[in-house]
Amino acid sequence: MEGIAQLPVPPYYAVIFIARRTLVDDGYNETATRMESLAHNQPGFLGIESIEQGDGLELTISYWKDEQSIFHWKHNPEHLEAQRQGREKWYEALEIRVARVERAYGFEKS
Amino acid sequence: MEGIAQLPVPPYYAVIFIARRTLVDDGYNETATRMESLAHNQPGFLGIESIEQGDGLELTISYWKDEQSIFHWKHNPEHLEAQRQGREKWYEALEIRVARVERAYGFEKS
Repeated sequence: MEGIAQLPVPPYYAVIFIARRTLVDDGYNETATRMESLAHNQPGFLGIESIEQGDGLELTISYWKDEQSIFHWKHNPEHLEAQRQGREKWYEALEIRVARVERAYGFEKS
Repeated sequence: MEGIAQLPVPPYYAVIFIARRTLVDDGYNETATRMESLAHNQPGFLGIESIEQGDGLELTISYWKDEQSIFHWKHNPEHLEAQRQGREKWYEALEIRVARVERAYGFEKS
């Protein structure tokens, strides 16, 4: 987990991914790490925020320049194969929400 | 944490809240619990997904019917006081992103 993503001024897009894991591990960690590094190299990738809870609940938000970047990432062949395995064995339930970030604000103490 | 929120068909709004905690506890848990229950009773509240990592990183997404519901929640007097205390003592850094959810899909194994 890299903490709070450093992102440009909105608008941009967020893909909210929330999932409940099965008890099956079979390649999960390797694939998760590989997908994160693959995402970083996609055109339009802006950042990622991800937390996993001890009980198998996982919440990941990836940020993208536009809808087209999300489309290309979704259809990346290696990612498609990971999605297939995810549905088949790693996830009990998942929900994906695609959203347009319209404004952002915050602070960081120095 | 209640897991994956059950939400209506989009569009609706998401408030993505990511924060890094300080080491100060002073009333934090009570206030967090109280704010979650207060949010549930706000007009336009649709659901919440929240995970906290052991190292103090917190990721919470609350879902709302429209921008007006978010505005009212942000300006609720008790919530304003919690925000003030959050900035002052509980959070080292935080970022809030307001987004319009445009589509959603997923599965749940029976």
